[in-house]
Amino acid sequence: MGVESLHSFFEPEGVALVGARRSPGFGYGIPLFLQAQGWANRLYLVNPAGGELHGMKVFKTLKDIPAPVDLAIVIVPAEAVPGVLKEIGECGIKNVIVESAGFAETGEKGRALQEEIGTIAKRYGMRVIGPNCVGVVNTLNRFASVELLEESMTPGPVSIIAQSGVFGNILLDHLPRCGLFISKAITLGNRADVDENDSLAYLGNDPTTKTIMLYLEGAADGRGLVKTLKQVTPRKPVLILKSGRTGAGKQATASHTGSMSGEDGIYNAVFSQTQAIRAQSLPHLIDLARVFATQPLPKGNRLGIITTSGSLGALATDVAVSADLRVPNLSQSTADHVRGMAPDWMNVRNPLDVGPSGTFSRALPLLLADERVDMVLSIMVIPYAVVKNVKTMGFTLKDWFGDMESLRSRFPDKPLLAVVVGHPEFVDDVAHLCGPYTPVFNAPEPATSALAALWEYAKGRGEWR
Amino acid sequence: MGVESLHSFFEPEGVALVGARRSPGFGYGIPLFLQAQGWANRLYLVNPAGGELHGMKVFKTLKDIPAPVDLAIVIVPAEAVPGVLKEIGECGIKNVIVESAGFAETGEKGRALQEEIGTIAKRYGMRVIGPNCVGVVNTLNRFASVELLEESMTPGPVSIIAQSGVFGNILLDHLPRCGLFISKAITLGNRADVDENDSLAYLGNDPTTKTIMLYLEGAADGRGLVKTLKQVTPRKPVLILKSGRTGAGKQATASHTGSMSGEDGIYNAVFSQTQAIRAQSLPHLIDLARVFATQPLPKGNRLGIITTSGSLGALATDVAVSADLRVPNLSQSTADHVRGMAPDWMNVRNPLDVGPSGTFSRALPLLLADERVDMVLSIMVIPYAVVKNVKTMGFTLKDWFGDMESLRSRFPDKPLLAVVVGHPEFVDDVAHLCGPYTPVFNAPEPATSALAALWEYAKGRGEWR
Repeated sequence: MGVESLHSFFEPEGVALVGARRSPGFGYGIPLFLQAQGWANRLYLVNPAGGELHGMKVFKTLKDIPAPVDLAIVIVPAEAVPGVLKEIGECGIKNVIVESAGFAETGEKGRALQEEIGTIAKRYGMRVIGPNCVGVVNTLNRFASVELLEESMTPGPVSIIAQSGVFGNILLDHLPRCGLFISKAITLGNRADVDENDSLAYLGNDPTTKTIMLYLEGAADGRGLVKTLKQVTPRKPVLILKSGRTGAGKQATASHTGSMSGEDGIYNAVFSQTQAIRAQSLPHLIDLARVFATQPLPKGNRLGIITTSGSLGALATDVAVSADLRVPNLSQSTADHVRGMAPDWMNVRNPLDVGPSGTFSRALPLLLADERVDMVLSIMVIPYAVVKNVKTMGFTLKDWFGDMESLRSRFPDKPLLAVVVGHPEFVDDVAHLCGPYTPVFNAPEPATSALAALWEYAKGRGEWR
Repeated sequence: MGVESLHSFFEPEGVALVGARRSPGFGYGIPLFLQAQGWANRLYLVNPAGGELHGMKVFKTLKDIPAPVDLAIVIVPAEAVPGVLKEIGECGIKNVIVESAGFAETGEKGRALQEEIGTIAKRYGMRVIGPNCVGVVNTLNRFASVELLEESMTPGPVSIIAQSGVFGNILLDHLPRCGLFISKAITLGNRADVDENDSLAYLGNDPTTKTIMLYLEGAADGRGLVKTLKQVTPRKPVLILKSGRTGAGKQATASHTGSMSGEDGIYNAVFSQTQAIRAQSLPHLIDLARVFATQPLPKGNRLGIITTSGSLGALATDVAVSADLRVPNLSQSTADHVRGMAPDWMNVRNPLDVGPSGTFSRALPLLLADERVDMVLSIMVIPYAVVKNVKTMGFTLKDWFGDMESLRSRFPDKPLLAVVVGHPEFVDDVAHLCGPYTPVFNAPEPATSALAALWEYAKGRGEWR
């Protein structure tokens, strides 16, 4: 089935929730959440007990629902799932999210139950997400099969595929604090039917998804993964965090979402061959997403560094040249220009350590405009005691560093990242100064490493054209 | 000269500040700061103009000071430093901090000026820190030759040596937010005299320093470094962030504090041979300090993992086994005990993925007590919607996870770290629950990596005994 078979997961006309209930839990919370998101008139609750919940009628069976339904969310005990699925099939509903746990992740009995789900799905031509997941999120129409906080429902350019429901859910809780907002999310759970390849293909075609984050424990279908990644990565970056790298790690995932992960070397080869970007850790995944979601692709690998601390400039340079970036000399005209405004003690080179010279705000745009520079790292640290003095004298950080936020649009073709370390108040002020489109890092190394990944992807895309 | 020659930098009887002035800057801010720290009656300001500053008399020359002075802080233009140093020498003051910049970091002329400082220091038998630095901090007697905020003056177990003044200063601004508090700090600058070896030896003998953080661009004296590290690391861990790893990075440091860094491979060999712990990045340095400052050394390399998310448990396992840790089976008695309280679907193994079983608070102490486990990683993630529901039902996070803070003292011999990812409010609540002696990380990988470094150090110490 093509990617259009996933459409109703994200854009349902009518949604049945089977397993609505009065006691705390998904069956209670999700109806309340969807009501608050404006879905009350397209949401139908089902429970054999009938009655009312949150002021909404509870239907005793699916067949009683007097309106078209194209998506069912199933939250009933594992043993009851096959029966419910058949009923859904009989009603002609083609998309189902099974959130219930208790399947292949628990052992042999659960595995048999899960196979039954797959069989039923095939028989009725249904697409099933799950079991053992929290389903989907679409921030644009405010539909989600999982309770989220308001800030996680703010639309953005990133979409998420997570094999694990909990992982996807806590990532959604966490990302707004990192300045990351999402378009869609899908948690796969045990993958009785819908897998990461279906999801990648769907999000690859989704116009509001600019960057895809994927958390994978083991590929459901290796050949399919290669094929799908090759289709998707030329259009948008796919950032992958893959666990089960080691034997012990593999064993840990086996009992968790019921999959066995393959050999790690093969995954490395697959990701490299398909231009997928592999994250080395959860923080690295988030760093990459922040940068890929906001920055243009660089035209080359030449990094310009401007810094108020020589030490941090050196740490950035180390990472850059270890990772296929160059830190070239400035062009003669940039160097002359900076020299003309700089005090004698300042060394005019790259990294450009401006120290307390007061030239930062004028030098940074020169660096961005330099034709020998493809991307810029702006390291902004000032001891807080100095910041306080400067403020006392009536100067602002904008006087010092310039109108950082405007640079993203003034130099649309060159990636620009910021680094700030120091007192929390100063860090917050600099982040505010940079605005939402220049990611701010708390150390030079992860920022530089993200720029190297951006170049690696840009280079690969260039080769394919 | 022995380490006692550094004593007056940290415990001065009387301090002369040469270069006090009325305009904003160090010469204005440091006197005000030291006044606020209670040093007014042991601080003597010097400026040829005389007069008053902050209600304190300003002496026209050092000779006019009517009380004993054993430390001078010099904040005058570079050209004036040699003259001032001679005057200090004539007065018999043996410890001098030269904060002024404009020496070897700026070129040949500055280098000559700096050599003059070294010559004068030798002639008068003085110890000189700097030039181009911010000197020292001692939180215990509230003495510092740099303006700091109140939270950075809170005493703690970590001491810092930073080759760069700005780097040391922003680190001091930053660390309280990471839960790290310091005993002493010293910024070396251009090292006309006092270097990292003197500083390591001094802090190695300092009873309030439990862990040393060192930021180094290039060794002043390689043999001395090997010898000093060999003396210090058996007594306390030395965490080193070394920049200039690459040719370009080296070039970047050359113009900064006027030193050329040596070859990186040699440094790796030196650090490994002397049991110094090399940080891979600034965030890694801070992670290591948080763990070494609070945790006991493990007796072996066996890691127990308890988690509410199988995914994060797998990511931790990957890092552990890649870094010489083992993730062994639980002992039979622990396994039986956990099995007895666990629902059927829960897999009783290591990592112990308790999911939403409600057994976390009882299982974690069992894991810590297990004789097959040397250290524990506690991964605590719950989707925020679930947290909200649980709170509505009257339960607290302490009900869920147990009295985390008490575990540090109940199991004093086993390192315990926490990981939490999710909504900021949940993250803050868990951090509060863990208390100040169980570091909380925002991802499993850096926490596991820090535990591996702890074991690496513990193992090395064991071999020496």
